[in-house]
Amino acid sequence: MKLTEMPREALVRFHAEMLEEYRRCQAKGLKLDMSRGKPGKKQLDLSNALLSLPTEDACVCDGIDARNYGTMDGLPSCRAFFADVLGVKKEEVFAAGSASLTLMYGVIAKAFTHGLLHSEKPWCKLDSVKFLCPVPGYDRHFTICQSFGIEMINIPMTADGPDMDLVEEAVKDPAVKGIWCVPKYSNPEGIIYSDETIARLASLKPAASDFTIMWDNAYCVHEFAGEFIPFKDMLTECRNAGSPDMVIEFASTSKITFPGAGISCFACSEANMAYMKKLLNAECISFDKVNQLRHVQFLKDKEGVLAHMKKHAVLMKPKFDTVIELLDREIAPLGFASYHRPTGGYFVSLNTMAGCARRTHQLMKEAGVVMTNAGATFPYGKDPDDANLRIAPSFPPLAELQEAMQVLCVCLKLAAAEKLLG
Amino acid sequence: MKLTEMPREALVRFHAEMLEEYRRCQAKGLKLDMSRGKPGKKQLDLSNALLSLPTEDACVCDGIDARNYGTMDGLPSCRAFFADVLGVKKEEVFAAGSASLTLMYGVIAKAFTHGLLHSEKPWCKLDSVKFLCPVPGYDRHFTICQSFGIEMINIPMTADGPDMDLVEEAVKDPAVKGIWCVPKYSNPEGIIYSDETIARLASLKPAASDFTIMWDNAYCVHEFAGEFIPFKDMLTECRNAGSPDMVIEFASTSKITFPGAGISCFACSEANMAYMKKLLNAECISFDKVNQLRHVQFLKDKEGVLAHMKKHAVLMKPKFDTVIELLDREIAPLGFASYHRPTGGYFVSLNTMAGCARRTHQLMKEAGVVMTNAGATFPYGKDPDDANLRIAPSFPPLAELQEAMQVLCVCLKLAAAEKLLG
Repeated sequence: MKLTEMPREALVRFHAEMLEEYRRCQAKGLKLDMSRGKPGKKQLDLSNALLSLPTEDACVCDGIDARNYGTMDGLPSCRAFFADVLGVKKEEVFAAGSASLTLMYGVIAKAFTHGLLHSEKPWCKLDSVKFLCPVPGYDRHFTICQSFGIEMINIPMTADGPDMDLVEEAVKDPAVKGIWCVPKYSNPEGIIYSDETIARLASLKPAASDFTIMWDNAYCVHEFAGEFIPFKDMLTECRNAGSPDMVIEFASTSKITFPGAGISCFACSEANMAYMKKLLNAECISFDKVNQLRHVQFLKDKEGVLAHMKKHAVLMKPKFDTVIELLDREIAPLGFASYHRPTGGYFVSLNTMAGCARRTHQLMKEAGVVMTNAGATFPYGKDPDDANLRIAPSFPPLAELQEAMQVLCVCLKLAAAEKLLG
Repeated sequence: MKLTEMPREALVRFHAEMLEEYRRCQAKGLKLDMSRGKPGKKQLDLSNALLSLPTEDACVCDGIDARNYGTMDGLPSCRAFFADVLGVKKEEVFAAGSASLTLMYGVIAKAFTHGLLHSEKPWCKLDSVKFLCPVPGYDRHFTICQSFGIEMINIPMTADGPDMDLVEEAVKDPAVKGIWCVPKYSNPEGIIYSDETIARLASLKPAASDFTIMWDNAYCVHEFAGEFIPFKDMLTECRNAGSPDMVIEFASTSKITFPGAGISCFACSEANMAYMKKLLNAECISFDKVNQLRHVQFLKDKEGVLAHMKKHAVLMKPKFDTVIELLDREIAPLGFASYHRPTGGYFVSLNTMAGCARRTHQLMKEAGVVMTNAGATFPYGKDPDDANLRIAPSFPPLAELQEAMQVLCVCLKLAAAEKLLG
């Protein structure tokens, strides 16, 4: 029976039962962490071969000693590696350090201090800078905006990606300078942007000459169920639509090898590349080419990456299956919540009854299970419906995840019953 | 005989001889590089043990799995390592990625976009921002300033460090926001700031509340002749002088292990640290802790670093001896040039006859030897006397260095003779 259709008397009983179950959960004294998209230990172990690479006799690559200064845009082999994975040209790739987030921050920071390629002036000289934020979305994108005082505009996600009607309308405002996109296995919903959405994004004619699509392709090879799904190259799409400089793409191996100790890149038109390299020249001599070489030797190419991701999938799929099974069994019949069934990426996005997400999160916390903050998937941490919760099943071992999910189901039900009882 | 005292007839003969020698140099078709402070291959080989660290069973340190996300301010062991080397407290250290230059750029960038701890407003909102630049100095400091449109003010170096009379006068201007310092084995002169200079710097009472001493301690353990020279901790000096937040110190292992693939840090007061961490939280999740762990396991502590630097010294000293011996023999008797005799660091700073540096550089280039650009050691690349040349002897093998230095001596003499002949 749907919870909303339950007679009050039955609901009171349901609430009492849930409260009792919750107290049993609390009594276990759990200490579980489902807060971030952190790979689990077994996933890290898959890349331990990195730890003894490169060998002493293989430090020279492309005629460059990876151990020494120089080659700011990265080892040619590493640029070629990312080009292969992303389906772009090697000349369009800048291979950098361990974090694509730092590269994204860098683009926004440089937009403020120097302006981007087609900026009329640096953004710090503007009265207002706005960004489009598909919601629910990735909290760290929003944190960057907030740090720079960028006004964030919510764009609801559809099953095909951001609501393009709203996007096309919003970009008529010259203060709107860009949009954050996680186009494949979006964070948190695991949605793959449709071809039509991609085409409409590439065809945007924004009022701002320096409008930039921040194409955070964080999960480009991160299928955990089924085969690799080919995906359009956004650089080509934008070039074909006559706006080659409108997109900057980001990727990393954070969730392929070691998070925070992997390699990252950005990819963009050659004109953007020349502009960014001039700015980056003041900031660095070279990124960690030894780590670039280490990764190229280990992962080799796209084929090597896809084979490696199959090993991750073996570890990830049972965890996502656990999440969905429990939600299907415990929550679906009550009809007050909805959730996605991703086949890749790192999250399950769950919408509980409006007004219940923060309470659910609080209950979880008080039962010893840390989740991503309710609201974190929205700009300013403000979910207008107070409904969205992001489940990050990768980090805990399977047994702990099962326990955490059981607690979550109890908390979801308890919070919803509380709400309905008023 | 001094060149300036040579009768014209003798000078004409001297010029002709030099021209002939120069042509012989050119005929060799050399291709040598003395342009940057790059360690040589044998120096890199000293750290090859890094390539097989950490071992699989030693990836957890301080209870933290170095392979995963988290611990933004760096592995506690790595912070303790830098604290030991620099003589500061662990809490004052932020251990980061592979490049201290990127950290320095980051501080200036954040000053522009957000302001520093004691800024009244972000520097991008100011009409004028000025920085004091001891000259000759490090070109990459100047490049950062230039990138942000910071007006650079030359402060001549003395044998004790920057001319403090001029510095004390200059900081009365509230637009003067900081000073670049390479306090030990300054780039390029190899000068160690005297205790008095350090005390006067720490005691500065600048008009700007957010005046910052950018303390680039790049060569803190880089003696190549003689024992390690203890050096005052600038954080303590500033704290004792009542200005704990006036300094940010930078260091890295770029010239200890692998340049561009080492680890770096900044050190500052705990108030500055809290402020910087809040800003950095928008930029990164964590730096490469695997590389931090790798370095801590390899270098261990200050004692370990000093023992390692002795091995560098064995390779570096003969190169510096070669430079000085050739200058002493070929150039000193002619009395038109002066140079420093460093015991640490990476450079020999040479002042040739005024108006001859660019010409000498050009002659070198045309004989196949690349040197740091003449003027590079001054803001905007403008050496007012056109006299300073930076010799970087570390990269070429000894035999090549000898050849390059012989060419340099010929070019110095030829350019000076040309100048005197008018």
